[in-house]
Amino acid sequence: MRQIKNIKDKKRLLEFLNSYVSDNKKQLFDKIIKYRTRHLTVVLEDIYQPHNASAVLRSCDCFGIQDVHIIENENTYEVNPDVALGSSKWLDLIKYNSKKNNTLDAFNTLRDKGYRIVATTPHKNDQTLDELDISTKTALVFGTELRGLSDIALDNADAYVKIPMYGFTESFNISVSAAIILHHLSEKLRKSDTDWKLTEDEIIDIKLNWAKTVVKKSDLLVETFNQRYNK
Amino acid sequence: MRQIKNIKDKKRLLEFLNSYVSDNKKQLFDKIIKYRTRHLTVVLEDIYQPHNASAVLRSCDCFGIQDVHIIENENTYEVNPDVALGSSKWLDLIKYNSKKNNTLDAFNTLRDKGYRIVATTPHKNDQTLDELDISTKTALVFGTELRGLSDIALDNADAYVKIPMYGFTESFNISVSAAIILHHLSEKLRKSDTDWKLTEDEIIDIKLNWAKTVVKKSDLLVETFNQRYNK
Repeated sequence: MRQIKNIKDKKRLLEFLNSYVSDNKKQLFDKIIKYRTRHLTVVLEDIYQPHNASAVLRSCDCFGIQDVHIIENENTYEVNPDVALGSSKWLDLIKYNSKKNNTLDAFNTLRDKGYRIVATTPHKNDQTLDELDISTKTALVFGTELRGLSDIALDNADAYVKIPMYGFTESFNISVSAAIILHHLSEKLRKSDTDWKLTEDEIIDIKLNWAKTVVKKSDLLVETFNQRYNK
Repeated sequence: MRQIKNIKDKKRLLEFLNSYVSDNKKQLFDKIIKYRTRHLTVVLEDIYQPHNASAVLRSCDCFGIQDVHIIENENTYEVNPDVALGSSKWLDLIKYNSKKNNTLDAFNTLRDKGYRIVATTPHKNDQTLDELDISTKTALVFGTELRGLSDIALDNADAYVKIPMYGFTESFNISVSAAIILHHLSEKLRKSDTDWKLTEDEIIDIKLNWAKTVVKKSDLLVETFNQRYNK
């Protein structure tokens, strides 16, 4: 199927698909898209327990983080439907699994898009969540449960952030630490002057995906649309 | 064994037990006790999955919340050692399981100690974490995974707090929501002018418990101490 690139044509396709979407759902999409952001993004490196990765996806959806970058050097990631509660279908999951070093591939791809790479781990040069500057686009990298982030991820990060802890226990489960970090930074971002919102073009692309998710046989409808209007 | 009530005697007992505690541990205790608070406290109502309750204990320890009140109307709570990572031994766990209605018993006990009861759940009169006033002592009540808080808990709470959410998914696992709430409110408390610290008396009691936890056969030592100095 030919990819529609022109924003006017995309808008027409969205209008066409939307005629099959209930008013309730359309209102929900309109409400939720306003809070979505790509200013913050999440990177998961080799998460091996699906329920942990799924819980992170759920937090991303709840706090409006649209993109999740999944690095698969060793572990192939499958969504656990019980834990993700369907949240993965509303997110853009971008996988990195075809290169010799997928961590570097992900970091380079994100840097090209203007992201600063922030490893979420205690480190000699770390900052607290409060101290971390998120005025530029920020990719938050989370590591495996057992070994934390790889040396390659640690060596190639631009900054390190940690959750301040005051007790005997000095670590959190990854789903808990991701939730704390995403809650804190997304609230901080929304209160700031930073322009964190999606562009009109991004909004249409995401709404198209959401409409395709809820409309039955949307592939056929898109094809019909293309044949009719978009030769 | 007779309970020592006099602060001077308690100090002498602590000094005696501390002679069996390593310098490293004593320094750790001194560091951690400074961050402990009873200004915020946690109440768990009928949590039936031990790994969830244990994850909440871990968050309490990490964020310096000393007391956890455990209401057992239906479920008997056991600590899951894998998830709690030993955090329960550094906390004061107070159980309510002997009355006809243990939820009311816990709420009344806490109100007598000056606590405001805050149910952590979306509600028609709820506030966000930012809006919640924590200048007075605050007990945060968390409910079961399946049904949320009981009607009795909801009807008898003084206030309701929720985590702002912006996505399709509208709920969190209890261990995740407790971690977000405790992180947010404990940071807010530490930055405020509120006097959240423990009293000297409380510090000695807690340090005595910690010393008893790490010193072998501490019961015998306490008895020896009582016989020698405290007839």
